[in-house]
Amino acid sequence: MISHPVIWAFRISLRRGWRHPTVLKAALKAPGVGFVRGYSTPVTGMEEILSRVVAPVPSYETRDKHPPPPESNSVEFMHFYKTLDKEDKLYFLTKLSQDYGVDHKSVSELSVKLLDTQLRDLATVLQAEDRLRYTLTPRYKQLLSHISRVEGGVKFLVDLRADVFEIISSKASDSPDIKDLNATLKSLLSEWFSVGLLRLERITWQSPCEILQKISQYEAVHPIRNWTDLKRRVGPYRRCYAFTHAAMPGEPLVVLHVALTEDIADNIQSIVREFATLESEEDVNKINSAIFYSISSTQAGLQGVELGNYLIKRVVRELQSEFPHMAQFSSLSPIPGFSSWLQGLLSQYRKEGRGSDLLSEQEWKEVEQATDSSPGMQAMDSLRKLISTSEWMHSEKLPNVLEPVLMRLCAWYLYGEKRRGYALNPVANFHLQNGATMWRLNWQADTSPRGFANSCGIMVNYRYFLNETSINSALYLQNKVIKASEQVLGYVSQFQRNSKL
Amino acid sequence: MISHPVIWAFRISLRRGWRHPTVLKAALKAPGVGFVRGYSTPVTGMEEILSRVVAPVPSYETRDKHPPPPESNSVEFMHFYKTLDKEDKLYFLTKLSQDYGVDHKSVSELSVKLLDTQLRDLATVLQAEDRLRYTLTPRYKQLLSHISRVEGGVKFLVDLRADVFEIISSKASDSPDIKDLNATLKSLLSEWFSVGLLRLERITWQSPCEILQKISQYEAVHPIRNWTDLKRRVGPYRRCYAFTHAAMPGEPLVVLHVALTEDIADNIQSIVREFATLESEEDVNKINSAIFYSISSTQAGLQGVELGNYLIKRVVRELQSEFPHMAQFSSLSPIPGFSSWLQGLLSQYRKEGRGSDLLSEQEWKEVEQATDSSPGMQAMDSLRKLISTSEWMHSEKLPNVLEPVLMRLCAWYLYGEKRRGYALNPVANFHLQNGATMWRLNWQADTSPRGFANSCGIMVNYRYFLNETSINSALYLQNKVIKASEQVLGYVSQFQRNSKL
Amino acid sequence: MISHPVIWAFRISLRRGWRHPTVLKAALKAPGVGFVRGYSTPVTGMEEILSRVVAPVPSYETRDKHPPPPESNSVEFMHFYKTLDKEDKLYFLTKLSQDYGVDHKSVSELSVKLLDTQLRDLATVLQAEDRLRYTLTPRYKQLLSHISRVEGGVKFLVDLRADVFEIISSKASDSPDIKDLNATLKSLLSEWFSVGLLRLERITWQSPCEILQKISQYEAVHPIRNWTDLKRRVGPYRRCYAFTHAAMPGEPLVVLHVALTEDIADNIQSIVREFATLESEEDVNKINSAIFYSISSTQAGLQGVELGNYLIKRVVRELQSEFPHMAQFSSLSPIPGFSSWLQGLLSQYRKEGRGSDLLSEQEWKEVEQATDSSPGMQAMDSLRKLISTSEWMHSEKLPNVLEPVLMRLCAWYLYGEKRRGYALNPVANFHLQNGATMWRLNWQADTSPRGFANSCGIMVNYRYFLNETSINSALYLQNKVIKASEQVLGYVSQFQRNSKL
Amino acid sequence: MISHPVIWAFRISLRRGWRHPTVLKAALKAPGVGFVRGYSTPVTGMEEILSRVVAPVPSYETRDKHPPPPESNSVEFMHFYKTLDKEDKLYFLTKLSQDYGVDHKSVSELSVKLLDTQLRDLATVLQAEDRLRYTLTPRYKQLLSHISRVEGGVKFLVDLRADVFEIISSKASDSPDIKDLNATLKSLLSEWFSVGLLRLERITWQSPCEILQKISQYEAVHPIRNWTDLKRRVGPYRRCYAFTHAAMPGEPLVVLHVALTEDIADNIQSIVREFATLESEEDVNKINSAIFYSISSTQAGLQGVELGNYLIKRVVRELQSEFPHMAQFSSLSPIPGFSSWLQGLLSQYRKEGRGSDLLSEQEWKEVEQATDSSPGMQAMDSLRKLISTSEWMHSEKLPNVLEPVLMRLCAWYLYGEKRRGYALNPVANFHLQNGATMWRLNWQADTSPRGFANSCGIMVNYRYFLNETSINSALYLQNKVIKASEQVLGYVSQFQRNSKL
Repeated sequence: MISHPVIWAFRISLRRGWRHPTVLKAALKAPGVGFVRGYSTPVTGMEEILSRVVAPVPSYETRDKHPPPPESNSVEFMHFYKTLDKEDKLYFLTKLSQDYGVDHKSVSELSVKLLDTQLRDLATVLQAEDRLRYTLTPRYKQLLSHISRVEGGVKFLVDLRADVFEIISSKASDSPDIKDLNATLKSLLSEWFSVGLLRLERITWQSPCEILQKISQYEAVHPIRNWTDLKRRVGPYRRCYAFTHAAMPGEPLVVLHVALTEDIADNIQSIVREFATLESEEDVNKINSAIFYSISSTQAGLQGVELGNYLIKRVVRELQSEFPHMAQFSSLSPIPGFSSWLQGLLSQYRKEGRGSDLLSEQEWKEVEQATDSSPGMQAMDSLRKLISTSEWMHSEKLPNVLEPVLMRLCAWYLYGEKRRGYALNPVANFHLQNGATMWRLNWQADTSPRGFANSCGIMVNYRYFLNETSINSALYLQNKVIKASEQVLGYVSQFQRNSKL
Repeated sequence: MISHPVIWAFRISLRRGWRHPTVLKAALKAPGVGFVRGYSTPVTGMEEILSRVVAPVPSYETRDKHPPPPESNSVEFMHFYKTLDKEDKLYFLTKLSQDYGVDHKSVSELSVKLLDTQLRDLATVLQAEDRLRYTLTPRYKQLLSHISRVEGGVKFLVDLRADVFEIISSKASDSPDIKDLNATLKSLLSEWFSVGLLRLERITWQSPCEILQKISQYEAVHPIRNWTDLKRRVGPYRRCYAFTHAAMPGEPLVVLHVALTEDIADNIQSIVREFATLESEEDVNKINSAIFYSISSTQAGLQGVELGNYLIKRVVRELQSEFPHMAQFSSLSPIPGFSSWLQGLLSQYRKEGRGSDLLSEQEWKEVEQATDSSPGMQAMDSLRKLISTSEWMHSEKLPNVLEPVLMRLCAWYLYGEKRRGYALNPVANFHLQNGATMWRLNWQADTSPRGFANSCGIMVNYRYFLNETSINSALYLQNKVIKASEQVLGYVSQFQRNSKL
Repeated sequence: MISHPVIWAFRISLRRGWRHPTVLKAALKAPGVGFVRGYSTPVTGMEEILSRVVAPVPSYETRDKHPPPPESNSVEFMHFYKTLDKEDKLYFLTKLSQDYGVDHKSVSELSVKLLDTQLRDLATVLQAEDRLRYTLTPRYKQLLSHISRVEGGVKFLVDLRADVFEIISSKASDSPDIKDLNATLKSLLSEWFSVGLLRLERITWQSPCEILQKISQYEAVHPIRNWTDLKRRVGPYRRCYAFTHAAMPGEPLVVLHVALTEDIADNIQSIVREFATLESEEDVNKINSAIFYSISSTQAGLQGVELGNYLIKRVVRELQSEFPHMAQFSSLSPIPGFSSWLQGLLSQYRKEGRGSDLLSEQEWKEVEQATDSSPGMQAMDSLRKLISTSEWMHSEKLPNVLEPVLMRLCAWYLYGEKRRGYALNPVANFHLQNGATMWRLNWQADTSPRGFANSCGIMVNYRYFLNETSINSALYLQNKVIKASEQVLGYVSQFQRNSKL
Repeated sequence: MISHPVIWAFRISLRRGWRHPTVLKAALKAPGVGFVRGYSTPVTGMEEILSRVVAPVPSYETRDKHPPPPESNSVEFMHFYKTLDKEDKLYFLTKLSQDYGVDHKSVSELSVKLLDTQLRDLATVLQAEDRLRYTLTPRYKQLLSHISRVEGGVKFLVDLRADVFEIISSKASDSPDIKDLNATLKSLLSEWFSVGLLRLERITWQSPCEILQKISQYEAVHPIRNWTDLKRRVGPYRRCYAFTHAAMPGEPLVVLHVALTEDIADNIQSIVREFATLESEEDVNKINSAIFYSISSTQAGLQGVELGNYLIKRVVRELQSEFPHMAQFSSLSPIPGFSSWLQGLLSQYRKEGRGSDLLSEQEWKEVEQATDSSPGMQAMDSLRKLISTSEWMHSEKLPNVLEPVLMRLCAWYLYGEKRRGYALNPVANFHLQNGATMWRLNWQADTSPRGFANSCGIMVNYRYFLNETSINSALYLQNKVIKASEQVLGYVSQFQRNSKL
């Protein structure tokens, strides 16, 4: 349900690839020559700007006696950066982070001094620590702070961070300085986008068109098709909330779509495609459950700044105050990656000749009959082919044959497949971090092409039991324990029995 | 014009005095006894709360894998703190800052490690620095961050900082840990109240009554007398601007009152008391100057977070866009402290028998004649007595006699009297830091009792020449150079000639 | 509780008296002479303007083919009228209504024609009627309609009507044409201020100061003393609602103050003066009753346009939706006029020697004892003197002696005294028209000087039983039947027994 | 440009046809039978409701003493009416207007009385007139007034009027009573939608989506294709204004689209289809002209209530205050009906054998050559065929051949063709009533299929010379004089010379 990965994939594909790091390294080592081969902006221009715009760090003693640098510095930096193309940006950011970071020599000197004070009085120790802390601040941090004060500055820094983040995640650079720049930016943005500074906005059909258009564009989980569709998603039996920020007016940062239903929804069609009570008033008596069916972050530059988690919690509070008797809170989430994981698994088992480890003998027989294929390899190939499209859905027998198989495989994928000990599936990881319970797998829950391509049409509810989320979250984050329902655990153990895992 | 000092004096006087530090130290050393003598809250209660609420710092490696502590921690801390009386707060804050600050042992260990890495690769060095930086963060900082996310949390921290700041400035404690807590709070608040996150609001008669009432209460420079007075201050030929913050809605943080006039105003009566065009429309042709006649910070807890400076600059931009031909920007500022400084000076010169060093022979003669006193001591006493009230104003001769004397003394007070090299007068210091020019002393510029009590009725214009403020500010802050007009410098050199300084 | 009468008395007293009608009549008869003696504006000027600005009525056939007259006509009329003094206005309005009203000759001609059509087909009859209707429209009506379209025009017409209404009610003129003008204006205003075009606004401490200041000024029933008082009246356990109109933004037309209480309030002190829960949150469980303790119309020009009645009904709906369990709705109303009525009564009975008809023998004895007076005339005089001040309140015995006497007299005043068959007391008349029940007289309910001066400190609750108001209203308006509680009826019959009425 | 006719045609076509009047008349004459054949609602039900809900008219004397009927009456009427189908509505409205209209007998009696008063004093005459006026008011008028006070009531009446208007214009009924009902409704709506009660709203991309969607739907002149198109129409170099009304929030009543251009636009492509400066800021120096390129009324029920005219005037004022140097105001208007008029003309001339009267000999020759047809009938047929599509546009010669011909025919159509003396073309009639000048015909100004189908691609500018509109409007409305430019008059006289008219 969380759309970061999707959005990322999409955005990156839109951009030109970064140059290979080694080319750049060469460039960075010989900047004196003026133009770096293939760069449109003279390298000396970049260096000149940086040296002029990034003010030197005042000495610790005079740190409160420095006037802020003129605003024009920030404005010039912003304008200049915006004119750069992708490759120049990489060079420029690398330069900024390398040449205007922490003064390592001072740090080690102050470390020595600090060690010298260890036997002295507390005030002296504390001051030595404070000096050290001061020296550990990268020189460019002050510039970033000043930029945040200029009109449009905060948004600029969010976008700058997106660039830095992309450089790192696309491995366009492996410079540790760039990573430091990333960490500094993230830490600053975390302060500025602290939840206390965010505003919860309910989006309705009365909201400005500018915002609704963005809501429509940002909805990556279950794309919005047209005005009527959009109107429904903010109409009766629906809620749409977003966090906005004073420094980025009109820009939703993270958006949560909620359906108000009688029972916990077990498919997305009834929410998104088949829902038609456009004009009707809400009947409060029919509202017992809040289904979070889509959550999207919109700012790549705020990657790692916790927003979605807080939005869900705020919305729960909001809904509880609107519907005091509301008892059930749950997501209805996609399972991106299940299909491709399954294809990989089948391919591997085929190679290893272990097909029978996935399905029971009886199940294989049914597959063979239904697909008119002979046992063994051929049946496996049939199966692989089957799940690559949604055609089996329309067959008479196959749905029944495949349901137990795919459900237990999917349960295992969500529950058993890990990355550094946490759930491999990013949506699962998001909700488990929030303290949700992996509650129910739903068969034929998303019958759209995308639904089949992602996860053979299966979706999952992560349920929020409000008095448990706090402890679940801690158990998951600290001990990597996943809280799951009996249904899920049942499928998992079926899988384990079959797979002899 | 800046009212911090005034507000401070006022607020502090309202509070009960702090206990003497030594009493407290004793208390802190023996907390085990349960109740500290005279404290209403069991000391053990405080300690229990702190140990429960201030989460341990996760190890560097797992720092991103810790769920935020439950919100209830923050809420409990806030509720508990609000129940404490002044003395308990001191104990509690001292405890918090001492026991939950930086882990000095880890810092020194990591310093050693850092020094060990000096010959290693850059990535290793940077990581060692980052670990050190991480360890240098006080343990309570995380709690403060979490509090900022709770509803009302930011305002709570602003008020907490006010308490900490008062403890330090009233010398109720000289603990270096409390100073560290103060620095941490200031640094957090500086990020959250970064100018990019502030909203400029123009206050008018259409603004919510809640805000206008606060504007009225906060106006400490030229107190607002009633609704009609208030209505005028936001009516035609006036502007009232404030910075507000998303996390503290309806709360103006710093307020600037501006008069729109033909020429640079040389007295406050015409702006505040004698102004009566309540209903009239503004005639743009009569508006050439913007006079900043009052600026007040409202949050003691934001002491040291630069707001007033930025507000003036934003307002200048705002006015320029509303009145493109606006050419003159100037303050009309009070001179708090001049009268008492002068009394002190006279008293000292009297003691030292150097009265003749302040006034010329001719001037003394005129004073003697006007006050009917004999030369020497008696004349000096007469003079001291005179300036302690405003009665001389109504005399026929005295105003003429005293004008040159008081004007050159005042010029010296503003220009020549220093504290650590910067202007002693806090209002002067504020505007000079902003880059204004000490432009004109005005005789009989504030004929209210307060005006005479402060500064014998003299006021001063600090003028903002927009293309000079940046350089003036740097010169003042870094080189302690005061930019002043010929009028001011003329008075200063008269003073120097007379005083043989 | 309705403050029309109060406001009126107040406003009229502020104005200069009108000239005596006869003087004016003479003036109107000889306008050719140019200046009317004592009028500042040349009469010919007025006539010239009227003849230019009041467009002729187009013929019935071409009525849809006339372009609206230029807006400048309306603007000129408005500007001119505003420059007139009181006497010129009377002349001007008289002229307008006489010379630009209905064309009586056409009306009678068309009446003849209409009678001729009686045997013709329906279409012919209907057209004759429509022509007659068209001809019965005063010529100035079109001008008034056009003025309503100009900016500020609606407010101008409201104020014009106030002038016309005052001319009539102060008997400055007895011209039937002026009465026609009044009726035309009232009918137009009734359409424009139809309830469907009004907006209910809840006034809070967040409302614009401009509106709150007006709320404060308009509150004539229980005057608001200062900001704190005002803040309370819009704070917790209070509601303040107003109707506003799109054409008069920021101008409350009628204001209703409500107190939310546990039981139906029996005195005003607890609501207005002794109420102090300024900051507290409302506890819904303590709110069972809505007490309308003040309603004020603000526009004299809307006299006769029903607003107060609709406001009360809208507010009841609003409160029911906020507090679904709210069960009791009642006014707590002043009884203006009771004291002076009582003085008149005593004076008359004294003259007629029928004192014993008002109090029982026993009661007279108690009065004599308490006032130390001899029986008969002297006791009566003592009584009259007593009730002219509030001093008896502080006596030990008198309150007990007087309570039954004054309560039954007051009940009679409210219930039994009539004007054209309806309740003489204007506040009673207002609530009875709305369908309220005269529910409870309250002793010592308004202990302010005004309370004693009005009604010996007595107040009354008119209670709104929602399912009865409609029928009560019809019974009162059509059959002059007053619905009253047993308490009230009990006092009334006591009075009747005593008075032998 | 005004879209009433277009909208109407469209709406009516969507509805089922009314029954033929004669059927209905029969039904109305025999209502006693219970169900009218084919009607779903029992006729007696309708009659019962009407007799209950339409209150009797109080006598003239007691007219101010009647409480308003209970709101439930209005609500019941509204609910009931909404359940009726088209035919029942016709029956119901006919019944209402016939049985609850004016009491003709009283009217004639009062007419007699009025004639009797003619020799009496003025007051008596005026009162007789007022009684007559009162009696001439249809009984149902009071009900309509009360409905306007109920929530949603005003909108209900607007829609009711739309039904009544459609009955009349579709000739579903020719009852004079229905026409009276229509006139009464129109007169009430005219008061409620008086311009003073309307609010001018500028629609931007920040406006609520609900409003923008309606703007999109209502745009009938140049249909809006998608979000991007819509965003442009409210973006830079564009203005979109609407009148809204307090009683119908969120509902634009009349919408005006304006393009801000350098010169007066001579084609719609550059405004609507080829315009692409989506993001750019406006350059004030490029804005000299305001082009009204679309105006649409949205409420069929407000037919005849002047709104468009006032909207244009308000917008002119608004634009003048935003762009003080704006000098040129003009429409760019479609010419619906020109093509079909031309087809008719050609067909008639062909029949009459007067083809040579329309084109010169030379022009016919060119047509023959270009269409490869023989002279006479065949050429005429070719011409008729040609203008029925837009294909000739792509021919090499035809555009040049046809331009002078079509332009002068079009000029004549607009200027010379009349209906009751006024311009036959409804858009022309609208702007000429407003006082605009028929300023310029533009060749190939609307190259869309609709543009060709309407008017062979020709459009026209009606120019607003602000100091002339008032006199032009009066001349047109009263004397039927059309103000036109030399270009237009030139074409007209060419046409006259050719056509020997």
